[in-house]
Amino acid sequence: MTVPSEMKALLLVGDGYTRTPSGSVLEAMEPYLEPGSIAVPTPGPTQVLIKVSLASINPSDIAFIKGQYGQPRAKGQPAGFEGVGTVVASGDEPYPKSLIGKRVAFATGVSNWGSWADYAVAEAAACIPLLDTVRDEDGAAMIVNPLTALAMFDIVKQEGEKAFVMTAGASQLCKLIIGLAREEGFGPIVTVRRDDQIALLKALGAAHVLNEKAPDFKTALREVMKTEQPRIFLDAVTGPLASAIFDAMPKRSRWIIYGRLDPEATVIREPGQLIFQHKHIEGFWLSEWMRQFRDRRGPAILEAQKRFSDGRWSTDVTAVVPLAEAMARLPAELAKPNGKVFIRP
Amino acid sequence: MTVPSEMKALLLVGDGYTRTPSGSVLEAMEPYLEPGSIAVPTPGPTQVLIKVSLASINPSDIAFIKGQYGQPRAKGQPAGFEGVGTVVASGDEPYPKSLIGKRVAFATGVSNWGSWADYAVAEAAACIPLLDTVRDEDGAAMIVNPLTALAMFDIVKQEGEKAFVMTAGASQLCKLIIGLAREEGFGPIVTVRRDDQIALLKALGAAHVLNEKAPDFKTALREVMKTEQPRIFLDAVTGPLASAIFDAMPKRSRWIIYGRLDPEATVIREPGQLIFQHKHIEGFWLSEWMRQFRDRRGPAILEAQKRFSDGRWSTDVTAVVPLAEAMARLPAELAKPNGKVFIRP
Repeated sequence: MTVPSEMKALLLVGDGYTRTPSGSVLEAMEPYLEPGSIAVPTPGPTQVLIKVSLASINPSDIAFIKGQYGQPRAKGQPAGFEGVGTVVASGDEPYPKSLIGKRVAFATGVSNWGSWADYAVAEAAACIPLLDTVRDEDGAAMIVNPLTALAMFDIVKQEGEKAFVMTAGASQLCKLIIGLAREEGFGPIVTVRRDDQIALLKALGAAHVLNEKAPDFKTALREVMKTEQPRIFLDAVTGPLASAIFDAMPKRSRWIIYGRLDPEATVIREPGQLIFQHKHIEGFWLSEWMRQFRDRRGPAILEAQKRFSDGRWSTDVTAVVPLAEAMARLPAELAKPNGKVFIRP
Repeated sequence: MTVPSEMKALLLVGDGYTRTPSGSVLEAMEPYLEPGSIAVPTPGPTQVLIKVSLASINPSDIAFIKGQYGQPRAKGQPAGFEGVGTVVASGDEPYPKSLIGKRVAFATGVSNWGSWADYAVAEAAACIPLLDTVRDEDGAAMIVNPLTALAMFDIVKQEGEKAFVMTAGASQLCKLIIGLAREEGFGPIVTVRRDDQIALLKALGAAHVLNEKAPDFKTALREVMKTEQPRIFLDAVTGPLASAIFDAMPKRSRWIIYGRLDPEATVIREPGQLIFQHKHIEGFWLSEWMRQFRDRRGPAILEAQKRFSDGRWSTDVTAVVPLAEAMARLPAELAKPNGKVFIRP
């Protein structure tokens, strides 16, 4: 396959980390990204070059382009942590070479060469050769959400209690976890911000869906915590909502933070609970989990592909936006609830 | 030995927990305690009755009488978690019986019958028969501080880094830990609130002593954290000071809260550090440690007695206040820095 020397991409405007953190909403593209043409990158010895078919947009991408994610931006490089495409070139090592011609799901967190471009570079180890039965939309969103879902639900299962809590319950990630939980008889307690999400999430398998905007939210929260005694709290938002939930949870609870959707201050309401009730506060990051639990990675990948192949999992698509229209359309598409937005180069 | 039917004691005024938390300072006795005469208690099958020689006063006692400690108050019962005395009666089980006539250090956290009285009831398992070489002042303060010091320093040693951080550096507890750390070549970084404590703590073995009231505190803190890279933070205060220290600490740091001296809000400044830097927030409670690490308890008790016997450890005494004078004198004596206050029935 002939690879051109130049390509189109959405390039990072900022460098490193921001000094002025903002919320999780992408209010406009221009402060963070600009469209441009750059040289098609050359893969290193352990890497592959991928012709991108479809790139996904995750909350972590938004945090990253704003300079408030766990790794620094490199100004002028393409953004985008995840996608699906075909390997068209590789480094010299045997495994990268073996991927040439294959359709793969890929993550660019380690290579730091983004997927919102005609071509992307990924570590061969961060590529998943896909079964033909997996749709592009599912392959493009296979790593960040599905593996995180399997990993975090693994934590819930190891803890053992059937009840557990999640904020941002209507997110794609939480829906995946709710499905896993239902299959194994667990009862997720989730928070949402709109009443119209309640029936949807209950139908998926949530045991309790609490609207954080409802006037009786605090009473309902305390009641559910008292009845269900959840010990694990998977938190995407932090801020006052998360503080209130953790405060209401019973002895030996673990507040596991994996996202920071609310920029408001995150207060430990009763530090005495950490002392006398043995509560913990910790974080979850997929990269860290994969580093610590290498033996869990392979089975999780296989499990994800099976689930997308047989239809137990399916990615809700809000929009597929051509790369050339991304600057104009992304903020509005991302503002719509309940599905994922993709970029098609 | 003849045991009277009535005894003098300082009795709890409040019941359960407070609804209006206040600071760690005992501003007055009357809101929390009243002097009184009550029946001498009868020990249960696993308990002993102790004629109290000397009772200690710890920060946990102040928190408890105010209703802001980890266990609820029982109105009308004596306060006081710790003391030294002679066992004068016991329950029917063999071990409690074997303690009769012995001088013991004791803790009343489980029996909930306090030491600020002529007689106290303790679980036999919460009594330590003392070597003759241990002074009453050291025996009366052997459990809460020395065992906590040995347990928390054990956490530091297991983590492995030579540098670690402590707030309330001039407390009796921190002085014990500083001594342990010096012996084993560890470098404690401690915070204090007065310059005159700096030389004292450096002489004991602190590697760095930072005055949190100094104008250059924040700069000094960041500098020391960067140079020393401590991973364990043993925190007695919470609030803004502790938040700032944890924020400045490096990757994989553990904020271990064991006290709540500052009632101000405790903010997790950068929840992203928990996600991307694998930082943790947890608590320490001696009762929980003894429950979880039973095999460490015996050696720690022996170690404490050896250290008090051979003079490596010695309790600084600010005052020994007769029980009859406690209502009038305790707040003023407790306000003095650098030593412990005891009650003598």
